[in-house]
Amino acid sequence: MIRFSRSLTRLLVELQKLPGVGEKTALRLAFHLLKSPDSAGALADSLREVTSRVRFCSTCFGITEDDPCRLCTGPREETSLCVVEEPQDLLAVERTGAFRGRYHVLQGALSPLNGITPSRLRIAELMTRLGEGTVQEVVLATNFSVEGEATALYLARLIKPLGIRVTRLAHGIPTGSDLEYVDAATVQRALEGRNEL
Amino acid sequence: MIRFSRSLTRLLVELQKLPGVGEKTALRLAFHLLKSPDSAGALADSLREVTSRVRFCSTCFGITEDDPCRLCTGPREETSLCVVEEPQDLLAVERTGAFRGRYHVLQGALSPLNGITPSRLRIAELMTRLGEGTVQEVVLATNFSVEGEATALYLARLIKPLGIRVTRLAHGIPTGSDLEYVDAATVQRALEGRNEL
Repeated sequence: MIRFSRSLTRLLVELQKLPGVGEKTALRLAFHLLKSPDSAGALADSLREVTSRVRFCSTCFGITEDDPCRLCTGPREETSLCVVEEPQDLLAVERTGAFRGRYHVLQGALSPLNGITPSRLRIAELMTRLGEGTVQEVVLATNFSVEGEATALYLARLIKPLGIRVTRLAHGIPTGSDLEYVDAATVQRALEGRNEL
Repeated sequence: MIRFSRSLTRLLVELQKLPGVGEKTALRLAFHLLKSPDSAGALADSLREVTSRVRFCSTCFGITEDDPCRLCTGPREETSLCVVEEPQDLLAVERTGAFRGRYHVLQGALSPLNGITPSRLRIAELMTRLGEGTVQEVVLATNFSVEGEATALYLARLIKPLGIRVTRLAHGIPTGSDLEYVDAATVQRALEGRNEL
């Protein structure tokens, strides 16, 4: 067995903490970085910079350099609020250009078995925002996983008594899919949600 | 379109310079690092440390913290020299435990169209080492790509006149393969290299 030097071993350990990076990918990345010390230095600098500058918006809990963030201060429809699990989900919705309201990032989804209870999410902050009385529709855009669906149901039950409309992204067949390859649960939900043409 | 902050944009650019990291993976890595600033800081530190400590061995041109490296100074067979393209290829050979000699890393393979001519590789240094007269066999372990094969042929022509035995790793079917899924060129080379049982 070959033994790596201390500093290389440490880099391999840190790289393997990244999502989707195992032993082989870590080695490949490390050797790439060793071959181009400039780009390793630039990566180190930008990691330092980003962690010192980027924080969570105190209003929507998305990521931002300025608090509150541009999505919370810019000219948007005040009456719609889209609730997502993570900052990257906010991006996925924003990328469509089809939503013009504001956002709220829960920073997770309910998962009692993993210790993620409502108090671990930004639900209290969400209810405070809704209590201000401006929002007329909450669009629940949590993931379509077991945890995401449970979180959506939980929030719906919490929000409806406030007299606010609660909607959920539509379930259905993804664009470009062959029906043949779509799982049965998705087809069933698409059937249930079928529309007039 | 959503605009990222300057520091996040910079991090995304740096991450996308890594091999196998595109736009989506860069975003996923960035969001992971933003969620755990400690591990982003640790990664930045270890990148700095590794680039300041790790260098190329002045004998074999593999990577090392001490120059010359342990593989060049340790007790190994002096008569065999294994030539590889990159430091990670050295690891791949060393991991087998089947080679007990020394190494020489070319730091690339010949690729005239990309400007990689013999003078860009550590070939002059290889010839100097061979000129010392200790090595009796050179094992060419360059990759089995067009560039790797061309490099092996080029080196064989250069080394044989010195009266040194030149060998090449065997071509054949990888362990655990279904013949059905192995490409025709590999099967052909395996047939040509068939052995008595």
